[in-house]
Amino acid sequence: MTESRMRREVLEIPAAVGRLIEEGAAEIGAAARAVAQRDPAFLVSVARGSSDHAATFLKYASELLTGLPVASVGPSVASVYGRRLRLAGSVCLAVSQSGRSPDIVAMARMAGEAGALTVALTNDAGSDLARACALPLDIRAGAELSVAATKTFVNSAVAGLWLLAEAAGDAALGAAIRGLPEALAAAAATRWDALAEALGPAGSLYCLGRGPGLAISNEAALKFKETCQLHAESFSSAEVLHGPVSIVGQGFPVLALAVADAAEAGLAAVADDLAAKGATVFATSALARRAVVLPAVRTGHPLTDPLALIVTFYAMVEAVARARGIDPDAPRHLRKVTETV
Amino acid sequence: MTESRMRREVLEIPAAVGRLIEEGAAEIGAAARAVAQRDPAFLVSVARGSSDHAATFLKYASELLTGLPVASVGPSVASVYGRRLRLAGSVCLAVSQSGRSPDIVAMARMAGEAGALTVALTNDAGSDLARACALPLDIRAGAELSVAATKTFVNSAVAGLWLLAEAAGDAALGAAIRGLPEALAAAAATRWDALAEALGPAGSLYCLGRGPGLAISNEAALKFKETCQLHAESFSSAEVLHGPVSIVGQGFPVLALAVADAAEAGLAAVADDLAAKGATVFATSALARRAVVLPAVRTGHPLTDPLALIVTFYAMVEAVARARGIDPDAPRHLRKVTETV
Repeated sequence: MTESRMRREVLEIPAAVGRLIEEGAAEIGAAARAVAQRDPAFLVSVARGSSDHAATFLKYASELLTGLPVASVGPSVASVYGRRLRLAGSVCLAVSQSGRSPDIVAMARMAGEAGALTVALTNDAGSDLARACALPLDIRAGAELSVAATKTFVNSAVAGLWLLAEAAGDAALGAAIRGLPEALAAAAATRWDALAEALGPAGSLYCLGRGPGLAISNEAALKFKETCQLHAESFSSAEVLHGPVSIVGQGFPVLALAVADAAEAGLAAVADDLAAKGATVFATSALARRAVVLPAVRTGHPLTDPLALIVTFYAMVEAVARARGIDPDAPRHLRKVTETV
Repeated sequence: MTESRMRREVLEIPAAVGRLIEEGAAEIGAAARAVAQRDPAFLVSVARGSSDHAATFLKYASELLTGLPVASVGPSVASVYGRRLRLAGSVCLAVSQSGRSPDIVAMARMAGEAGALTVALTNDAGSDLARACALPLDIRAGAELSVAATKTFVNSAVAGLWLLAEAAGDAALGAAIRGLPEALAAAAATRWDALAEALGPAGSLYCLGRGPGLAISNEAALKFKETCQLHAESFSSAEVLHGPVSIVGQGFPVLALAVADAAEAGLAAVADDLAAKGATVFATSALARRAVVLPAVRTGHPLTDPLALIVTFYAMVEAVARARGIDPDAPRHLRKVTETV
C-alpha cells in the first residue's frame, strides 16, 4: 500500500511550522502591533470544522494569556439571518484554510463593516477571505491535498498563538513556539499503539480535554469521524459528568487528552473515574492510576503542549483508518473545500 | 408502569411557564432596565449541561435581536486556571437550575469582580449562585425531581428571552412569550411516533439545527444520551457537512429541528441531502421533500418556535427511554445536582 497523503502531510508538520516561524515573523509582528494598538474590549472568532477547533484553541489562549474574552459567532448570523453584530472596538479572527467558504467570508466582511479589526488566518493568501480582512496572515502550511486537514490545523493554531504571544509581549511563549519544530518531530514519532488496538471493534467513543486541551479533543473527535467512521464526541472533563456519562458502559473507549497545566490532575481524576465505571480509558498523563497512560511529548509551555498531542494523534488516527480498510485521503461524502452558506 | 417523574414534569411545562409569566414580570422588568442602562459592549454566559444549551439559545437570541455578541466562557478559566477575565462593560448571564455547581458560582463571582453586571437564572432563589450575582432571577419552574432537566430548561430559556425582549423593547416577542403556555400545551400533545419507532435498533444518530434551533438540537442530543443511552450528537446543518457527514451510512438516523425562520429552507435542504445519502431523516419542516416531515407547533415568532420543538421532543424521548427499558428518572451514573470544579 502506498503511503497516504494524510500520512505524508502529518510528517510534514514540523517543517511546515518551521517555515511559518522562519518566513512569517514580519507579517505576524505587524499584525500583533495593530492588535495591541486596538486594545480590544473582546475578540470574536469565525470558523467551521477543524478551523473552528483552532479558533477554540485561540479562545483559551487569549483568555488565559491576557484575560480577553472571545465570542465564537455563528456565521449564519450574517449569511442566513442578515444581521449585523455590534463589534466596534473588537478584533475578529477568521480561520479557514481555503479561505473560500461563503459563510465565513460573509461574516468576516460584516465584522469589518461593523467596526472590528479583522484578521484572516488562511493557507491561501489570495483567497476571498484574505481579501475581505484588514490583516490577512498566511499560515504557510504548503499545499494540503488530503481531505482531512492536519498541517493546516497546526499552522493555523501556531500562527494565531504567535500573534497573541507577540501582542501580549510574552517571551516565554515565544520561545516555546520557536521550539515547536523539534518538539513536533518527536510528537509525530510517538506511538499510541495501545489505543489504536483497543479501538478495533468500537462504534462510539469519547474524547476529553479541558481548557486549551479541549480544543484538541474537539479536533480529535472530528478526525475519528471523518477518517475512521467512528462516532467520537468531545467533551470537557467537567461537562461529560453533566449527562453524557450516561452512555458510558463496559468497555466504552475514552481518550483523555491531558496537558501539563492546572487542569491535568482533574482530568486524570475524571479519566480514572470513568475507568472505574467500566470504560476503557487512555490518558496522556502520568497522574492517571486506572486509565492506561499514553506517552506525550511536552513542549515546555502549557499553551504549546496541546499541539504536540494533536500531532501524535494525527499519526495514530491515519493508521487506524487504514487498519479499518478506509482510505484516509478520501472520506465518505467529503471534498477538500466545503462551501456552506 | 407508573408515570415517570420526567413525563409529569414535561406535562407541567405550560403551567410552569404560565407561573413565570404571571409572577416574574416585576423582577424581570427591573433586571431588563438595569441591563439596558448598562448598555453593554458584549455579553458573556456561564453554564454547563442543559443550562448551557439554554445559554446558547440566549446567545442567538441576543445576537439576532440586538446584534450584541455573546461569549460563552468556560468555567475552568476561573475555577481551574484562576484567571480573571477583562469584563468591564459587559453583562454576564449565569444559568444553573440548582445554582450549586462550584465552578459556575466561582466564574459568576469572578465576572462580578471583573466589572460585569451579573444576572443569575436559577430555580433556587436562595442558592450560592443567586447570592453571587447582582440580579438573581427566579425561573419559577417549581420543584424538579427527575434527574433529566426539562421544565427548568424551558423556564431558563423563557426567563432569559423575556429579559432580552424587555431590554430591547420588542413588543412582538413579548406577545409571543405571553402566548407560550397555550402553544406549549399543544406542543406537549404533539406526537413524533414515526421518529420514536425508527430509533428502535439505533446506537448513534445526529441532531441538526441552525441559529436558535441549534441550541434545541444540542439539548435534544444530550437528552438522547442521558435518558436513552443513545449516542446522539448535535451539529449545525452547515457544520455537519464539514466532516461529521462521513459517518452517515445507510439508515443512520437524523433529526433536523427546523423552525419557521430564515434558516428553514437551508436546513430542509441539508436534511434532504442526507436522506439522499441513505440516512433515515426526520425534519420539522414541511419544506422537506425526501426527509419524513414531523408535525411542529408554531408560536408566531421565530425565537419562541424552538421552545415548542423541545417540548414535543421531551415528550417523545421519555417514551423512547421507557420503550428501551430504561427508567428516565434514574439515568446511569447520574445524580440530580452535578457539582464540578
